[in-house]
Amino acid sequence: PPGIVYLVGAGPGAADLLTLRALRLMGEADVIVHDRLVTAEVLDMARRDAERILVGKAGAAHSLPQDGINALLVRLAREGRRVVRLKGGDPYVFGRGGDEILALREAGIAHEVVPGVTAALACAASAGIPLTHRDAARTVTFATGHLRDGRLDLDFAALARPRQTIAVYMGLASLPLLRDGLVGAGMDPATPAAIIENGGTDRARSLPGTIGTIAALAEGWASGAPALVLVGGAVALGAPPAAS
Amino acid sequence: PPGIVYLVGAGPGAADLLTLRALRLMGEADVIVHDRLVTAEVLDMARRDAERILVGKAGAAHSLPQDGINALLVRLAREGRRVVRLKGGDPYVFGRGGDEILALREAGIAHEVVPGVTAALACAASAGIPLTHRDAARTVTFATGHLRDGRLDLDFAALARPRQTIAVYMGLASLPLLRDGLVGAGMDPATPAAIIENGGTDRARSLPGTIGTIAALAEGWASGAPALVLVGGAVALGAPPAAS
Repeated sequence: PPGIVYLVGAGPGAADLLTLRALRLMGEADVIVHDRLVTAEVLDMARRDAERILVGKAGAAHSLPQDGINALLVRLAREGRRVVRLKGGDPYVFGRGGDEILALREAGIAHEVVPGVTAALACAASAGIPLTHRDAARTVTFATGHLRDGRLDLDFAALARPRQTIAVYMGLASLPLLRDGLVGAGMDPATPAAIIENGGTDRARSLPGTIGTIAALAEGWASGAPALVLVGGAVALGAPPAAS
Repeated sequence: PPGIVYLVGAGPGAADLLTLRALRLMGEADVIVHDRLVTAEVLDMARRDAERILVGKAGAAHSLPQDGINALLVRLAREGRRVVRLKGGDPYVFGRGGDEILALREAGIAHEVVPGVTAALACAASAGIPLTHRDAARTVTFATGHLRDGRLDLDFAALARPRQTIAVYMGLASLPLLRDGLVGAGMDPATPAAIIENGGTDRARSLPGTIGTIAALAEGWASGAPALVLVGGAVALGAPPAAS
């Protein structure tokens, strides 16, 4: 039978934030192709005898380049295998999912995308921070703190405007550049900001501050776990949930 | 024992896009308090003998005002009940979840927020449209098409800027206003746009166009089912997944 590739969002890392659909497909897969961001507890939910192939993550040493991942997915499907391409969070939010689907489409491989809980949603839930909130945040924008040629390639003029929440993925290392960019574009340095680590898991921690102070506060606080930066007026509404 | 309120994202409507955590909590709940946006197939996953309370949705006739919902959640928890407050999508994206959590916090009620797959992720997956994509979409912004005093209260100057994807929730009725606002703020009318109905379910449909044409195309196409509008360069990359 012809093979198929499911591009599946694995959610933020907690096994119980997988969707039922993701779990079913992981249970039926012949091969799981995954990034380093997919946690061991999530991988443990896959079919026990499914082959597991680690393809690293963008920017990491010893990882397969994107073209190589695309070619691998095409080859596995042409071998007739049922492939789950598992990505941390959601496949279409900073996951290069677009590249992989285009490659599958061009190769004529059957494919399907399964959405997942992206990190911003999980981190907001853990920190008790609403991403939208009447007047304080009419919109929410997801951006990435990943550097290009040593700089943050972001539209700071748009991001510095009021009444929005900004969620910066992989934003920890570039926090000083984010601060300089936003404040340089007119954002009030007193604008609330927070860092959330391990959002969605029982190891979640959050650090409140302002866009002016948060980079300095983060030094010595951050553990190196996956982290998200939230900026905007609604961030001041946050508090760790009472029940956890 | 003291009661507790779980504010749970029900996802986009397909039962199998619930998270495992949501499913477990729905199975343990004494009471399910839900909106009209939560589908019957999702509600069917709850404990059979759990009480179900429909509180309508914002703007609908015969729905409980937000203050009434907040008071209901507090009262149920004070009666010692285990309450699941179920919201379509994610509780913290256009769900008034912030209001409910503030009320619970003020009342000293134990609570926890469980993230869910928000509509933009499910619609993008169904339509094969990456929300972010290298240069075409460096960021993605979620906005609402809900009217305030008959107008769209959005920062069109920010939304009209290039290299982003805009996802407009409940955007169908206000599409002409969205077009006028974006084009008036400088967006090229040829910018790709799409409407996706029933995203994440096997009834998903998508309509491609441009921000200039999509409002006219939508007439006669839209069924009245929940729909999302996507706008931006990356929207042109979309195609219905081959497998569905």
